[in-house]
Amino acid sequence: MPFSFDLLKEDTETNARAGAIHSPHGDIPTPVFAPVGTLATVKALSPADLYQLDTPLILGNTYHLYLRPGADLIAEFGGLHNFMGWQRPILTDSGGFQVFSLKGLREIDDDGVTFRSHIDGSKHRFTPEKVIAIQEQIGADIIMVFDECPPHDDYDYNLISLERTHRWAERCLAAQTRSDQALYGIVQGGVFPDLRAKSAKFLASLDFPGYGIGGLSVGETKADMRAMLDILHPLLPRFKPRYLMGVGSPEDLFECVARGVDQFDCVLPTRIARNGAALTHYGRWNLRNAKFARSRQPIEAACTCYTCQNFTLAYLRHLVKANEILGHHLITLHNIHFMLETMRRIRQSIFDGTFAAYKAEFLSKYQVAGSKQQGVSSSFQSPII
Amino acid sequence: MPFSFDLLKEDTETNARAGAIHSPHGDIPTPVFAPVGTLATVKALSPADLYQLDTPLILGNTYHLYLRPGADLIAEFGGLHNFMGWQRPILTDSGGFQVFSLKGLREIDDDGVTFRSHIDGSKHRFTPEKVIAIQEQIGADIIMVFDECPPHDDYDYNLISLERTHRWAERCLAAQTRSDQALYGIVQGGVFPDLRAKSAKFLASLDFPGYGIGGLSVGETKADMRAMLDILHPLLPRFKPRYLMGVGSPEDLFECVARGVDQFDCVLPTRIARNGAALTHYGRWNLRNAKFARSRQPIEAACTCYTCQNFTLAYLRHLVKANEILGHHLITLHNIHFMLETMRRIRQSIFDGTFAAYKAEFLSKYQVAGSKQQGVSSSFQSPII
Repeated sequence: MPFSFDLLKEDTETNARAGAIHSPHGDIPTPVFAPVGTLATVKALSPADLYQLDTPLILGNTYHLYLRPGADLIAEFGGLHNFMGWQRPILTDSGGFQVFSLKGLREIDDDGVTFRSHIDGSKHRFTPEKVIAIQEQIGADIIMVFDECPPHDDYDYNLISLERTHRWAERCLAAQTRSDQALYGIVQGGVFPDLRAKSAKFLASLDFPGYGIGGLSVGETKADMRAMLDILHPLLPRFKPRYLMGVGSPEDLFECVARGVDQFDCVLPTRIARNGAALTHYGRWNLRNAKFARSRQPIEAACTCYTCQNFTLAYLRHLVKANEILGHHLITLHNIHFMLETMRRIRQSIFDGTFAAYKAEFLSKYQVAGSKQQGVSSSFQSPII
Repeated sequence: MPFSFDLLKEDTETNARAGAIHSPHGDIPTPVFAPVGTLATVKALSPADLYQLDTPLILGNTYHLYLRPGADLIAEFGGLHNFMGWQRPILTDSGGFQVFSLKGLREIDDDGVTFRSHIDGSKHRFTPEKVIAIQEQIGADIIMVFDECPPHDDYDYNLISLERTHRWAERCLAAQTRSDQALYGIVQGGVFPDLRAKSAKFLASLDFPGYGIGGLSVGETKADMRAMLDILHPLLPRFKPRYLMGVGSPEDLFECVARGVDQFDCVLPTRIARNGAALTHYGRWNLRNAKFARSRQPIEAACTCYTCQNFTLAYLRHLVKANEILGHHLITLHNIHFMLETMRRIRQSIFDGTFAAYKAEFLSKYQVAGSKQQGVSSSFQSPII
C-alpha cells in the first residue's frame, strides 16, 4: 500500500490530531503546512533550501503546470519530482479553483469547463477525466478531484454546484488508473451547514483516502470558516487526513488544527515575503518600515533560520527597498521556516497534551501586535497571477 | 602591513602573471575575477552561495551605496563587510564611472562633480576628498581614486580630462586617512597610446599599492582595448596589481590576463543570467531557446556547480520562460562558478607554464559556437540601474 494515514494522537481539549501520512516519496508528519510551488518551484527557494528547511510536502498547481511547461513534458521527465529535482512528497490541486477564478474566460457545463489560457488566450477544456489524466502525468503523491469552487454565499447556486461537484468526484474516482497516488475528495457547500454536512456524508461514502475542504479561503469570515470546520469534524472519516485547501496564516494553523485539520497549503508566507513582509511571533512586519532602518536585530533573535542567524533588519530593509532578489529569498526562507517550525511545535504539543496552552500563548502574543485581518479570512488560495 | 601583493610567477610566452594580494579580509589569488555586488548584494546570490563558490573578492559600487542605504548607515554597522554579512575581501569603485554616466544630470568642474540622484533627483556633490571619505566609511579592502571616465575617442577632451584625473589622484592620496585600505590609482587616456603612457608614468610616480585601468569597457573595439594593455604592461609597476575595471567576459579574461592584467570585475555573468543566458565553454547560450525545451542535459555535464549537478536545461528553460526567481538564482550561480573556475584554471596554467596552450584551447572552443561580439568590446561596466 503506497499511501496510508496513521492517526497517532487526538487532543482531549480540542479536536486537534497528530498523525503521519505515508506516501511513495516519504512520510508526512501531520498536521502539516505545505509551501506552494505553483510553477514547479516554491518561489525564491531552491530544492536545496527546501530540504534544509525540512519541508515535508509541497504543492504544485495543475492548471499552471498544464499550461507551462505542460503535463506531457513533465511526464516525459518522469514526473514533477524528477523535473524539478524534489524527491519528497508533492500534492497537486485539481486546477478547479484556478479555472473558476478565470471570470469571463470560462464556461461551465455539467460535463466540465471550457476556458482560455491567461497566458496566450488559447482554448482548453477540463473535465474530471482530463484533470485526473493530467495529474497522473504530473505524478504527485496526493492528487485532488476536479471540483467547482462556487461563490461562498449563494445558497441556490451552491446547491446546484454541489450536485455537479459530487458527480465529478465519482467520475474522478472512476478515471483514476494509477495506484501509487492518493486521490482526495473535496467537500464543498459554501458557508451553509446543511450543504457542508451533505457533502461530507456523500464523499465519505465514496471512501477516498483523504478529504480536501474547499471553498474556505474565498472571502468568507473567519467565524464562518471555523463554523464549517466544526460541522465537518464529526462527519469526516476519523482515520483519513483532512486538508484545508488554500488556508494557512499563522493564526489559521492554530484555529484550524484545533478543529481537526491535518493539512494546509497557502501562498501567504511566500507571497508576503516578496512584498517585504516577515512573519514573527508578534504578527506580520512590513520590513520597509523606517523604524527598521538602523536595527541591528534579526527578524527574530530566537529564530534558527539562515536569515535570522546572519542578517539584520537594517540589511533586509535595504534589500527590500532596493527590490533585490536576495531580499525576496531571505524573507521567503524565514517565513517558510516560521510556518514549518510553528507546525512542528503544534504537532509536538499535541503529543505532549499541551496544544491548547500553546495555542493560547501563541495567539495572545500574535494578536497583541495586531494582525489587521479581523473577521475576514486572511488566508487565500492563489488565483491566476 | 595590511595590504601587499606577491608576484609569484610570470609567464614566459605571454605577459600573464600569477600572484596573491594580501588584504585585511584575507588573501586574493590573482588573476582574479570579482562578481559585482552593486547594492551590497551580488544579485540573486547569498553570502552563503558566494562562500560556497569560493569567491575571493566582490565589488561594491560607491555611487549606489552612497545613495542607498547611505555611507553613514554602513559605517554605523562597522562597514560593508558586517552590513552585508560577507567577511572576505571587498573592493569599491570610486563612483566616477556611474556619476559621469549620468548624462544631463551632472556638471563637472575642476574641483569635482555635482549631480542629481537617479532615484529621487536630489542634488549631491562628489569631490576627490568626499569620495575617499565615503569609501572609508564603506570600509572595503581595496578602494579607488575618483577619476573622470571620458568618451574614449575624443583626443582633445581626454587630454584636458587626464590632467584633472591626475590632480584628483593626488588629492585622493592626500585625503586618505585609513591605513588598512589599499587605494588604487586609475590610468585613463582613452584609446590614445601617448595619453595612456603619460597616465601610467605619472601614476606610477605616486606609488599607489595597485593600479586600475579605467575607460576600457565603454564602447571601444577589443583591438583598441588590447592595444592599450600592451602599451601599459611595461609602464605599470611590475610588483603592483593591475585591475582592468568593468571588464570580464570569458574571452576577455584570457586576452587580458595574457596582457598582464591581475584583476577583473564585470556585471556580465550576473546580468546575462537574469536575462536567461548561461556561460558555457562553447559560448553564451540563451536558455529561452526552444531547442532546450526537452533537453535532459545540464548546462554543462562536466560542471560541478549546484545548478549543473541538479537541473536539466528543460527545467531551467521553464524557469526562465516563467520568469521565476529560482531561474535567476540558478543561472547566476552557474555563471559565477564558470567565471571563478575558469580563472582558477588560468592561474594554475600560469604556474604550470601552460597558459598559452590553455588560452588557445579555450578560445578555439569558445569561438566555434560564435560569440556575436566581434571587434566591439562585449564587456561593460555597470552604468546607472
